[in-house]
Amino acid sequence: MQTFTLLSRQRNQMIEITDQVRECLAGTGNRDGTVFVYCPHTTAAITINEAYDPAVVHDMLLWLQRAVPHKQEGFRHDEGNSDAHIKASLVGSSVTVLVEKGELMLGRWQGLFFCEFDGPRQRTFQVQWLPA
Amino acid sequence: MQTFTLLSRQRNQMIEITDQVRECLAGTGNRDGTVFVYCPHTTAAITINEAYDPAVVHDMLLWLQRAVPHKQEGFRHDEGNSDAHIKASLVGSSVTVLVEKGELMLGRWQGLFFCEFDGPRQRTFQVQWLPA
Amino acid sequence: MQTFTLLSRQRNQMIEITDQVRECLAGTGNRDGTVFVYCPHTTAAITINEAYDPAVVHDMLLWLQRAVPHKQEGFRHDEGNSDAHIKASLVGSSVTVLVEKGELMLGRWQGLFFCEFDGPRQRTFQVQWLPA
Repeated sequence: MQTFTLLSRQRNQMIEITDQVRECLAGTGNRDGTVFVYCPHTTAAITINEAYDPAVVHDMLLWLQRAVPHKQEGFRHDEGNSDAHIKASLVGSSVTVLVEKGELMLGRWQGLFFCEFDGPRQRTFQVQWLPA
Repeated sequence: MQTFTLLSRQRNQMIEITDQVRECLAGTGNRDGTVFVYCPHTTAAITINEAYDPAVVHDMLLWLQRAVPHKQEGFRHDEGNSDAHIKASLVGSSVTVLVEKGELMLGRWQGLFFCEFDGPRQRTFQVQWLPA
Repeated sequence: MQTFTLLSRQRNQMIEITDQVRECLAGTGNRDGTVFVYCPHTTAAITINEAYDPAVVHDMLLWLQRAVPHKQEGFRHDEGNSDAHIKASLVGSSVTVLVEKGELMLGRWQGLFFCEFDGPRQRTFQVQWLPA
């Protein structure tokens, strides 16, 4: 298992982490299996989406902010970041990707993203190689 | 694989199951790997979120009820619980968590939750230990 | 790892793929483990939900279209399919299911679905058997 650190710079931000995940597979030989990427925070998430046009990430964050507004009537959590907790469970705490002969089997347009929903902060994520 | 049973008491409820998942790791020795938690129901889900302040769970369920109202124009499913099916796919049927030396590697505020969206009912969930 | 091809016929469509996933387990003997199903596209997803009454799928797609409208003010992605990218991350790129003695351990009403959000198109998905 490898742990990576990153710094987010906005309250809502998607940071591509494909290179770090690929790096973890360097020492595993030409084997098949899966790689598991985990977010240990409750106001952040991990997802896979298009890494080519940054407008996709922009539109996704815009939709999330509209669908889950920061402040809402009836919210009780004192920290005032319930929107971030909700987004974390909607997007999910981890992703798994296939590995074939040591290579990450992403689709053509896919990249892995750390999703910050309550930044800016220092964050971590974990990567675990699981041979088949 | 271990199967656990629980009773939900409300239509929408998040029930913490971290202790049960930890219990499953007792006999596995000090090994590394992952643990997989699965919900075999189509109107319930599994998620990871803050287990410290119960207001987080309250706010998440409130948002879900507003975003996915119980009755909606155009819904065709006779049982009248399509909202619960939709929430199940949004939140997801399973989670995976890292295990290091036999210990669940949750982040500081993280807990595992069984999410009931069509209770009250008797439900089950399954836990499978997967060594790396 | 096995790769399957399918053809979607609508812009938004959920296509059951339970039989293909089950087929992958035919040669694995009576072993325990998990099976991992992956979508290599950024405008499609994989989910588990009720496969018995097709009205459930209808209602889920109806809700998703209402919650994530096709065109939205402020969207920047030129291809005009940001809604599909957003739905892909909400529903998720993969699912994992338990396998016991070579059998898929789905709940009574559960089936696996490939979720098309930007069809009609030819698509693929991948299935990987992971022994425990």
